[in-house]
Amino acid sequence: MSKYWSELTRGLVPYVPGEQPKVQNLIKLNTNENPYPPSPAVTAAVNSFDKGRLRLYPDPNSDVLKHALADYHSLAKNQVFVGNGSDEVLALAFMAFFKQAKPILFPDISYSFYPVYCNLFGIEYQRPGLNDGFEVVLDDYRCDNGGIIFPNPNAPTGRVIGLQQLRSLLQRNTESVVIIDEAYIDFGGESAIALVDEFPNLLVVQTFSKSRSLAGSRVGFAIGNAGLIDGLERVKNSFNSYPLDMLAMAAAVAALQDEAYFKQTRQKIITSRDWLEAELTQLGFEVLPSAANFVFTRQSEQAAAQLYSQLRDRNILVRYFASPRIDQYLRITIGTQQECEILVAALKEILA
Amino acid sequence: MSKYWSELTRGLVPYVPGEQPKVQNLIKLNTNENPYPPSPAVTAAVNSFDKGRLRLYPDPNSDVLKHALADYHSLAKNQVFVGNGSDEVLALAFMAFFKQAKPILFPDISYSFYPVYCNLFGIEYQRPGLNDGFEVVLDDYRCDNGGIIFPNPNAPTGRVIGLQQLRSLLQRNTESVVIIDEAYIDFGGESAIALVDEFPNLLVVQTFSKSRSLAGSRVGFAIGNAGLIDGLERVKNSFNSYPLDMLAMAAAVAALQDEAYFKQTRQKIITSRDWLEAELTQLGFEVLPSAANFVFTRQSEQAAAQLYSQLRDRNILVRYFASPRIDQYLRITIGTQQECEILVAALKEILA
Repeated sequence: MSKYWSELTRGLVPYVPGEQPKVQNLIKLNTNENPYPPSPAVTAAVNSFDKGRLRLYPDPNSDVLKHALADYHSLAKNQVFVGNGSDEVLALAFMAFFKQAKPILFPDISYSFYPVYCNLFGIEYQRPGLNDGFEVVLDDYRCDNGGIIFPNPNAPTGRVIGLQQLRSLLQRNTESVVIIDEAYIDFGGESAIALVDEFPNLLVVQTFSKSRSLAGSRVGFAIGNAGLIDGLERVKNSFNSYPLDMLAMAAAVAALQDEAYFKQTRQKIITSRDWLEAELTQLGFEVLPSAANFVFTRQSEQAAAQLYSQLRDRNILVRYFASPRIDQYLRITIGTQQECEILVAALKEILA
Repeated sequence: MSKYWSELTRGLVPYVPGEQPKVQNLIKLNTNENPYPPSPAVTAAVNSFDKGRLRLYPDPNSDVLKHALADYHSLAKNQVFVGNGSDEVLALAFMAFFKQAKPILFPDISYSFYPVYCNLFGIEYQRPGLNDGFEVVLDDYRCDNGGIIFPNPNAPTGRVIGLQQLRSLLQRNTESVVIIDEAYIDFGGESAIALVDEFPNLLVVQTFSKSRSLAGSRVGFAIGNAGLIDGLERVKNSFNSYPLDMLAMAAAVAALQDEAYFKQTRQKIITSRDWLEAELTQLGFEVLPSAANFVFTRQSEQAAAQLYSQLRDRNILVRYFASPRIDQYLRITIGTQQECEILVAALKEILA
């Protein structure tokens, strides 16, 4: 600690992202990355981009990317906001909408960056508990609040809420902003983007990191009513005018335009997830129903921390959270089919 | 305005970046971009980068880039912080160090993002005036303060302060952080990086946007005492874990390693600046001494706003600020020698 830190800085408890190991030949199933490379159109777009143009500032409004997203989702351009990964989009949204007198609400088990943002921006929060099946119970979100946020599908559980339930929540929660954080929606859920024209207080946040295989490019976006988007733009333009670089935008636009590749890789992941669920169940694992590109699972006889270490010894990295309620679970990202098979073989060995 | 905006959002006055026009064939001398493309090593690094790796998250700590910067400046890695452009670095630094009970100090005429950050983060400020020669008067920064920041060379004036004067400031201002914003330092000033081992409260911020021709890649950095850098990391990891994407980091490292190209393009700009200063003086302009890649200048007989429009009519874009004290000045970025010659020819026509 330095005497020059602000009080704010002294009080921070920063987010700890999943490990990005520098060891080679690991089977990396710990940070929900897509096991397949981005579309070949991304490679083509980046390679053919005239690098001489990098001397210029990017378009601060990212119009080309916003147009591409608006077209894709059949929306107007002023319903789209883009940022440096969905983490930045969420950070800006917390400032824009959640800095309120009343506490915001999010589940006790969900994305661990939410309390970090609250701490940074001085936002109070309450955390209704997931039920025993690790589902978000929307009845617990009826109290007066400064905002509501949860991932859907939830992380790290993978459980998803349907549109009808979300609509009911939005129908009764009209006085604060509801953010649905859809990082994993493409792997099995129905996007709440379908509801943005109906509810002026709904903001849907998505990312190119998972289903578009572009975690390395840092592109996230939000969809909502033009008034909410305008609020995000004001905060963004008070923080950093040009958060998206030229190559990231070119990559994202190319990825968005290759729908066939997107559907194909998504389906491969869903197929492997189904296969892995069945195999894990056979091995005595309880597997929560997942609509994401990971499964959340516990083994009846082996402690999760021990399984995590034993897998790591075999060069397989999964995610273990030493946190209340979930310290007997592992979150396992869906790899390629081959990686899933190596994982299952390793688990058979460990459990033998 | 939406009823869902936080009070904070309602009170914002966002920064307005210089125009990024979509018209072709403009001579663009309005946002201090480098007229020369980035090093060929940048093109090679981006093209040879395996785009399949974009499916993975980048290194959240940007170790490779930090190492390259530490080596370049003969510092330790824990004295280097990197961010999504120097604007993001500055925003995080305002949170980390300037959110204090006492007001911070910056010049009345300087980078117009500073008061925007203050507004966003609720930081009080005072703005000592530049003198009649548009110089920062360091004697005005003697009062008790929550921090001090100014660009050196200053923007939009181009005037620079020498190391000896900065050392005097730092010798007497030991209780708050002093940030020297060196976006333009490579075009003629001495970097305060030479002083970071001497003063634990000195933070130097630089960017790859200008002298490295990488505005389109969004890479900025800060150099300082390990305690200050640690504070920045805490705030960054409470806001966005992965602000730098893989291709931006690869581009920055390649640019940093091509010292010959860097020196050559920098010298071309300095030579053109000297030529342009002489030509403008001949045309009845007063030109402030500039250590940056732009000149700040006024013409004795023609109003600046009118000159701006007349240049624009001839497809030449310069920057005009309709602000007190400087509304008779134009800020003109140094283009290629050919662009400078076209500018001078246009001015001769206009003033004829």
